[in-house]
Amino acid sequence: MRAAILSTGDELTTGRTLDTNAQFIADQLLALGYEVTAMMTVGDFPDRIESAWRTLFERAEIVVSTGGLGPTADDLTTETVARVIGRPLLRDEATAQRIRDLFESMGRKMPENNLKQAMFPEGAVILRNDLGTAPGFRFALETSAGVRHGVVMPGVPREMKHILAEEVLPWMRSLRDDASEWRSHTFQTFGISESALDEMVAGVLDPNTTRLAFRAAFPQISVRVTVHGAPAELDERLARAAAAIRERLGEFCYGEGDTTMEEEVGRLLTDAGATVAVAESCTGGLIGHRLTNVAGSSAYFRGGVVAYSNRVKNSALGVAIETLDRHGAVSPQVAEEMARGARAATGADYAIATTGIAGPGGGSADKPVGTVCIALESARATYSHRYQLWGNREWVKLLTSQIALDWVRRAVLGEDPTRSSVLRK
Amino acid sequence: MRAAILSTGDELTTGRTLDTNAQFIADQLLALGYEVTAMMTVGDFPDRIESAWRTLFERAEIVVSTGGLGPTADDLTTETVARVIGRPLLRDEATAQRIRDLFESMGRKMPENNLKQAMFPEGAVILRNDLGTAPGFRFALETSAGVRHGVVMPGVPREMKHILAEEVLPWMRSLRDDASEWRSHTFQTFGISESALDEMVAGVLDPNTTRLAFRAAFPQISVRVTVHGAPAELDERLARAAAAIRERLGEFCYGEGDTTMEEEVGRLLTDAGATVAVAESCTGGLIGHRLTNVAGSSAYFRGGVVAYSNRVKNSALGVAIETLDRHGAVSPQVAEEMARGARAATGADYAIATTGIAGPGGGSADKPVGTVCIALESARATYSHRYQLWGNREWVKLLTSQIALDWVRRAVLGEDPTRSSVLRK
Repeated sequence: MRAAILSTGDELTTGRTLDTNAQFIADQLLALGYEVTAMMTVGDFPDRIESAWRTLFERAEIVVSTGGLGPTADDLTTETVARVIGRPLLRDEATAQRIRDLFESMGRKMPENNLKQAMFPEGAVILRNDLGTAPGFRFALETSAGVRHGVVMPGVPREMKHILAEEVLPWMRSLRDDASEWRSHTFQTFGISESALDEMVAGVLDPNTTRLAFRAAFPQISVRVTVHGAPAELDERLARAAAAIRERLGEFCYGEGDTTMEEEVGRLLTDAGATVAVAESCTGGLIGHRLTNVAGSSAYFRGGVVAYSNRVKNSALGVAIETLDRHGAVSPQVAEEMARGARAATGADYAIATTGIAGPGGGSADKPVGTVCIALESARATYSHRYQLWGNREWVKLLTSQIALDWVRRAVLGEDPTRSSVLRK
Repeated sequence: MRAAILSTGDELTTGRTLDTNAQFIADQLLALGYEVTAMMTVGDFPDRIESAWRTLFERAEIVVSTGGLGPTADDLTTETVARVIGRPLLRDEATAQRIRDLFESMGRKMPENNLKQAMFPEGAVILRNDLGTAPGFRFALETSAGVRHGVVMPGVPREMKHILAEEVLPWMRSLRDDASEWRSHTFQTFGISESALDEMVAGVLDPNTTRLAFRAAFPQISVRVTVHGAPAELDERLARAAAAIRERLGEFCYGEGDTTMEEEVGRLLTDAGATVAVAESCTGGLIGHRLTNVAGSSAYFRGGVVAYSNRVKNSALGVAIETLDRHGAVSPQVAEEMARGARAATGADYAIATTGIAGPGGGSADKPVGTVCIALESARATYSHRYQLWGNREWVKLLTSQIALDWVRRAVLGEDPTRSSVLRK
């Protein structure tokens, strides 16, 4: 089955926004066994949206569209689609009521234009949106070339991903006319580049029967192995292929499936019945933010200190003025005292500390931008290490938070956390 | 003049690679006064590339393409373009020699397939590539609808950007038959939904001469006004239109241009010579993270405490056990004591505190998920407020951080921060 992807919005054609939806959808459709023959982007003009739908229906059996479902006058997708398929727009009362209720529950008056989001082409199947006011919809159309399907979703990535997973992909799976299936398994890695990863697993699998895909959306660097064929044999084939990849990846793999470093840390801490605290300087709160993105993290995350200034390093964490003077705020010694202070203040089993120069200013010949010191203290031991990282401010913060979380993960596993490295091949 | 952008490559249609070229080119063309009517992406198949060129030539006077110029068998752009425009491929000897020299200078034997990169459709103008082996080219084509221009560049972003800047944009500037330009101004808003914003500014501007675009990528909700016409009058027209929008938006607008809430907070604190500290419970470090995303934030951000557990609220911030017992951790009283504690511990001029239930667990009838209390203390006064927010965990954290930053902004401006609301229309 061929699929095409349509992205709508002036913010895309004017270059103001990078379209990440199309890539995300393409990746998901590939896993389902669809071939994406074209992706297209047009601005908020009815004639351009209309001609894009017609163009794409010539190239694919199914067109998946995002954007243009908002309540404002420049949101034109629904009415344009209705024109393309020659159906009237009807109001769905259940959706209208849901939108009214949503506003009421927020104690807000609903602007009348919001009811536009309850209009759908006749015969459309509504795709529930739990995260916003605009539901999506799908429709089928008889053409001289055969049946064509259209899927319409909002452009907000969070909402789109939710609708895609809950409402679209299960249906698209059932739509495929072929009994063969695709099954895949994902490994999450850290400490190795995408190209080194590629070399590492090269030649492990038969390219005729399995497929490897790499995806680097840092801090997620993943390898996905996919097998295709008759359902009866797929589980065993996938298990065999995954085992071969798992062996090659070794300790660079920190998790399997759709997981994140902070989720793995949380899982390990929960299993161990242990708690963690943070002492963050250059990461500014990012480690705590990531840890608390995981539901239920209050069971193992105590909190900690954002010690951005030396004064706070001293007053809240008890870092000695002498240590700060002698070694500087960015030093393994200060990181160790920060970790010790956070552990003492919170009573956590593990405390992780970061101090560094995220840039663009603040660097010196001795400690250039990207110099980062990390320390971890537990009842067993204290570890610290100085890293030389690279990149802009945002990148240094993100990379530091990832190394720090990996330290906690390794410490809970009983490993030496300083084995964690972003520099090894 | 209308332009279209074509991206070629299997790595794009399979979702393996995010296409950043198209956005970059769209942004550059807009600034030159071109309107991008369509962007399209196809895989490495001759029929798909060919039909994409034909489709885009129906929608624009100029098509700018990237990708498919490499030396391997799946690089098909040049030969496909030659077929589209009905011209033979000819070898350019100067280019062939340059490629041979390049390999020789690297001490490598040139694979014969590299000479493919010296082939161009007859009549094409070669676009010099100083950073790689594959030059680009451009061509003109007479069609029944008028002259069409095609630009072909490699897909490697570094090479593409270089060729675009050196060879393509100067020529495209000279190509425009019309001296008109586009200019725009952006407003950043908070506390109002996209649809309410639309109603608020409806009818303020003449839709024939100005264009309004809304963009909601929370926490950025922006309105952009764009004017189009002769350069001489554009500045004045834009200023007039922007003034009208500014007046309507009032206090919902927190910044103008390409700015963020945390940048505005930083700017105001810097201007006031003041400092800020955080006491974060439900946001887990996100406010500190956002504040420290701004370069130079160490001048005004002292740090603070991530008080995720009650123990840390008491030990690090001095929140009384009695207050926690009587009012619960999620209460305006505890938020106030958290702010007071953070200010005392850091010596900052302003301290902002958050405590709430981000969910999905932890809610009760009295304090459901989404209950969030915020407090701010300064030398002048202490403020606190209980909000009822909504959405999933990530959303509650993000929304809370945005309200908290808006509180700091308003406090520094001398306003009552509790005026900040996401609930008002």
